[in-house]
Amino acid sequence: MTGQVSVAGLGPGHEAQITPEVSAALAGATDVLGYIPYVARIAPRPGLVLHASDNREELGRARAALDLAAQGRRVVIVSSGDPGVFAMASALFEAVEATGRTDIDIRILPGITAMLAAAARAGAPLGHDFCAINLSDNLKPAALVEHRLRHAARGDFAMAFYNPRSASRPDGFGRALQILREECGPGRLVVFARAVSTPEERLAITTLAEARPEMADMRTVVLVGNSHTRRVGGWVYAPRSATVSAPASDPEGDA
Amino acid sequence: MTGQVSVAGLGPGHEAQITPEVSAALAGATDVLGYIPYVARIAPRPGLVLHASDNREELGRARAALDLAAQGRRVVIVSSGDPGVFAMASALFEAVEATGRTDIDIRILPGITAMLAAAARAGAPLGHDFCAINLSDNLKPAALVEHRLRHAARGDFAMAFYNPRSASRPDGFGRALQILREECGPGRLVVFARAVSTPEERLAITTLAEARPEMADMRTVVLVGNSHTRRVGGWVYAPRSATVSAPASDPEGDA
Repeated sequence: MTGQVSVAGLGPGHEAQITPEVSAALAGATDVLGYIPYVARIAPRPGLVLHASDNREELGRARAALDLAAQGRRVVIVSSGDPGVFAMASALFEAVEATGRTDIDIRILPGITAMLAAAARAGAPLGHDFCAINLSDNLKPAALVEHRLRHAARGDFAMAFYNPRSASRPDGFGRALQILREECGPGRLVVFARAVSTPEERLAITTLAEARPEMADMRTVVLVGNSHTRRVGGWVYAPRSATVSAPASDPEGDA
Repeated sequence: MTGQVSVAGLGPGHEAQITPEVSAALAGATDVLGYIPYVARIAPRPGLVLHASDNREELGRARAALDLAAQGRRVVIVSSGDPGVFAMASALFEAVEATGRTDIDIRILPGITAMLAAAARAGAPLGHDFCAINLSDNLKPAALVEHRLRHAARGDFAMAFYNPRSASRPDGFGRALQILREECGPGRLVVFARAVSTPEERLAITTLAEARPEMADMRTVVLVGNSHTRRVGGWVYAPRSATVSAPASDPEGDA
């Protein structure tokens, strides 16, 4: 008998942003695995085993989930936001590849990802073409982060940054802001959205000239506008129309 | 007395992917406005007025919503997916700016956007840094689409394309595929995800060499992998780690 592994997105924090699909999976689970603060969001009940683990243990957690499913258990791995955006879905497929366990019934259950919850609070800053970039350099070189920031800026994409800053990486985000100031100029709009939909929610709208690294921590999503992004009242939004602005570098011209 | 306008995301199609927050807003609405097929998803009830309109009427719909709210009505504009991703939130703020009605109580209620529902069905193709690009050239020049495609490819982003192809734009998507073949090579993985979570759902996994424009229509989201994206079993996923691959053009080198 083979069980099932679902990877479920809990959304940014508020119960009202968890989909019924995810709630149903949790109600039917025998085991819930995840990073400690995410598992803490799951109500205990008889018949449900909660397995909380530290971050940076994603691959071990994914292997444990496959093991439990192979024993016939109904397993849910919980992620904050959406499981497919800088979260546990990729780790699970790495574990599937490493173990060869392609026979397990796997379901990915989407959730409201942090950048879209943050964008909704700010207005519509991601209403035009945009990039999502994980600024953590735990799993990729800082040079790749810089490379992508420059291409995103020169393509005039709006941007959303996950994991902008942590105690172990105090300097990378300052460097990212510096690159953006070089590429986009000082007036570009920036939104710092911390812990959206929780009691600790805090939103700040500023410009690249005024943005400081200390405005972000690991619970913050940072949104950067494109060259057309503007304010109306207390809101920030990207108009639906765009023209070709003069980019700092055009790949058709200089390749 | 001033009412309220909420812009609510209905998710990709299935009821179980509508958040409780959105369901509560719909239950409390006096008026629901939106594109005809989205309003058709709302159950009629006494006291609720449904206002369905054609697409390309976004700005008129947004102004009508502000007018109704100014009369004290509780208005919900419905979008498919997430309202902040190529949907009605930007149009509403354009109407706020045009009318000067910054006094209206506005709430943006996020939803499961199509690319994340599609990614969940395919595995985790957006598990690393990615771009979301609207391939429609209704509101931006085709040259800007091409410019962004090249920067996204040279930044080695995974990509998600909305509105890849319609009857009125039969050729643009073929051109986009040609650009991607030039930039990424023939082996790059591509997912065509049509009408995810509905009875018409259809998923196809292929490569740039095999991808054909006819595989997409307006109900399809197209996902393109980065240089590390791989298959395991029937799944497609982006590993969490990445290295700097040799890009066709490096902006640090040729700016």
